[in-house]
Amino acid sequence: MIKKSEIKKICEKAKLASRSLALVGSKTKNDILVAMARALLKGRSHIICENKKDLMLATRKNISQALIDRLSLNASRIASMSDSLLKIAKLKDPVGETIEILKRPNGLLIKKVRVPIGVILIIYESRPNVTSDCIGLCLKSSNAVILRGGSEAINSNVAIFDILNKEASRRGLPPNSISIIKDTDRRMVDELLQQEGLVDLAIPRGGESLIREVSKKSMIPVIKHYKGVCHTYVDEKADLKMAEEICFNAKVQRPGVCNAMETMLVNRKIAKYFLPRMIRRFRDAGVEIRGTIDVKRVVSDIKIATEDDWYTEYLDLILSVKIVKDTDEAIRHIMKYGSYHSDAIVTEDRLSAAKFLNEVDSACVYVNASTRFTDGGEFGKGAEMGISTDKIHARGPMGLEELTSYKYVVFGNGQIRK
Amino acid sequence: MIKKSEIKKICEKAKLASRSLALVGSKTKNDILVAMARALLKGRSHIICENKKDLMLATRKNISQALIDRLSLNASRIASMSDSLLKIAKLKDPVGETIEILKRPNGLLIKKVRVPIGVILIIYESRPNVTSDCIGLCLKSSNAVILRGGSEAINSNVAIFDILNKEASRRGLPPNSISIIKDTDRRMVDELLQQEGLVDLAIPRGGESLIREVSKKSMIPVIKHYKGVCHTYVDEKADLKMAEEICFNAKVQRPGVCNAMETMLVNRKIAKYFLPRMIRRFRDAGVEIRGTIDVKRVVSDIKIATEDDWYTEYLDLILSVKIVKDTDEAIRHIMKYGSYHSDAIVTEDRLSAAKFLNEVDSACVYVNASTRFTDGGEFGKGAEMGISTDKIHARGPMGLEELTSYKYVVFGNGQIRK
Repeated sequence: MIKKSEIKKICEKAKLASRSLALVGSKTKNDILVAMARALLKGRSHIICENKKDLMLATRKNISQALIDRLSLNASRIASMSDSLLKIAKLKDPVGETIEILKRPNGLLIKKVRVPIGVILIIYESRPNVTSDCIGLCLKSSNAVILRGGSEAINSNVAIFDILNKEASRRGLPPNSISIIKDTDRRMVDELLQQEGLVDLAIPRGGESLIREVSKKSMIPVIKHYKGVCHTYVDEKADLKMAEEICFNAKVQRPGVCNAMETMLVNRKIAKYFLPRMIRRFRDAGVEIRGTIDVKRVVSDIKIATEDDWYTEYLDLILSVKIVKDTDEAIRHIMKYGSYHSDAIVTEDRLSAAKFLNEVDSACVYVNASTRFTDGGEFGKGAEMGISTDKIHARGPMGLEELTSYKYVVFGNGQIRK
Repeated sequence: MIKKSEIKKICEKAKLASRSLALVGSKTKNDILVAMARALLKGRSHIICENKKDLMLATRKNISQALIDRLSLNASRIASMSDSLLKIAKLKDPVGETIEILKRPNGLLIKKVRVPIGVILIIYESRPNVTSDCIGLCLKSSNAVILRGGSEAINSNVAIFDILNKEASRRGLPPNSISIIKDTDRRMVDELLQQEGLVDLAIPRGGESLIREVSKKSMIPVIKHYKGVCHTYVDEKADLKMAEEICFNAKVQRPGVCNAMETMLVNRKIAKYFLPRMIRRFRDAGVEIRGTIDVKRVVSDIKIATEDDWYTEYLDLILSVKIVKDTDEAIRHIMKYGSYHSDAIVTEDRLSAAKFLNEVDSACVYVNASTRFTDGGEFGKGAEMGISTDKIHARGPMGLEELTSYKYVVFGNGQIRK
């Protein structure tokens, strides 16, 4: 077991590395990313071999098939990890960008310049691809990164890390720019979260309980990526054909992700025209419907939703359905039960749309589109660190820019304050 | 004593208020600010009377003269509080501003729009003017605010709050948009800091121990305003006359504030030309000098600085002085002992300037100007909430913009994800 003092040492080294890393140019970073992408492909048999160890342990522990699927690596998944690194290499380097220039009457020229945050701690579960994605994103934004993956994927994570870190050192990245905590003891996380002043930001990625635990214990600022209980509200003035396509896409295209729809709200005036056809289509796709009693009146043979259903992120082919009186009731429902992630209205009415977009206080609010677009790539940000459900620092898809801070660089010629 | 459940109720009401407040237009907000400014002037005798109660208690408790000065209100101080509210009324409303527009190939139009943060908790000490400043800034940025001032100023704070809150209700501001915790029991702060999900941001303003305490206990994101151990480095290529003016201004013009210089670093090559005259001038102004042994060799009759001195924010007419070999040593000193607030280099050499500006990782870095300019007003941001020494969300002077978050508003015409 790693000693507590060693955790501190790892963080101190990362802090030191972050200072040199901040000065590394874009070309060097991109060359390293490309080399890392290649190394990943070359090292794939080693990664798959180590991944097998994790899978064997998982099977022994009777872990669910869904989790085993998320844990599994094969040649094609490794190719896509490698691809992500190449894509990150191609993204614009955010570091050094001048965000704003302020010219003051006294002649001072103030530049607001993008700088790295410093040291970022990523605490994550299962998916081993997070290891290479986070290394890529942090390297490109010149942040030192400390990785702390879950015990279930430790062999895979270390294998990926070793390959990338070797490439990084070979190509002159400052030592300790990337580090991994190999000890999977939970107390190590607690210790990491105490390293205020050394670690600048903690990003937990995983289930809700992990995120709550990290937020609770952390002395370091945390950006949370909570669940997505996303809604689509079909307004009385909706184009019903469009509404059907949007709702179907939002629920069925990839149900296991945070931007998938979990609750569909339907305006009372159009419920009897819209619901029968819509629900038939959902059922044909294997979606279980849990609705209110008045939904059951329109479409019999559905389950009745409980109060808990409205709060639930199913991440599965299950949908809760409610009939509402108007846009106001839809907004009230979303604000009460939602997770402020992504919510949509389908309507041709500009006033209802404006009301919804204004009053629903979610990271992403949509009119006439699927909530499935809440994604760094779809927003044109390239790769993403995740979807922040926080309001501080970063909200919604977190790309490279959101992994930076800024500083004010002030140019004078002898100005003193009067 | 207020019950814990009442704290929760106050926060719930503030959350509810924040939703309506987000929709209040600029004109209404500005009218209320102007009315508040007037009410403050009209209510001045009541405020001064309540302030006298605080002062009497403070005198009985043998509180230092400096603290008593910070606590005292008179007609002119109240006039300047009123003035601040008028200035805030004139500032541009940040809410609703479109920060960025992204047009996607699939026809989606994504607007990144500035929105209020929600509910902001301000925990502060002594100065009663913070009460009206924070109410003004939060109202203008459409954030509900919960104020929790120190026990030493409770009568003054409540008097100011009551006057402003009465005006706010009279003019139709959503109820509970501003609230104050009248119970000065410390445990109330602990309870407030647990209200995750209701309070969106906590800003502690005051001494270091208060800030550490808040950061440690908070479940809510905190933006810290730590101390300012600010440096000025006089390079070998400095214009020595300019350096003298800048250093003198940075130390003497207002020594009790966080952007005042605490340590002067001088390049060895010019020390014997620069130091004698500079230190004479400091001494004439009553500044106590604490230097290294080699400073004492140039200017005898000074105190020797201890290791602790380099870490100390004197907030007083005391200056620590060190001779360094070059820009690199100056940077290393600043990174080791500084507080990453504001640091300056005086030089005519572009390379040294660039090195310093790049490598010193402080919120504000200066070339050829006094660190005293780190201030919302001087940066053209109007009033400020404080100077953040954090890297997450807001860094340096925090104005209205830094009191906002954003959301993505997405306009489609039926887009679904492929």
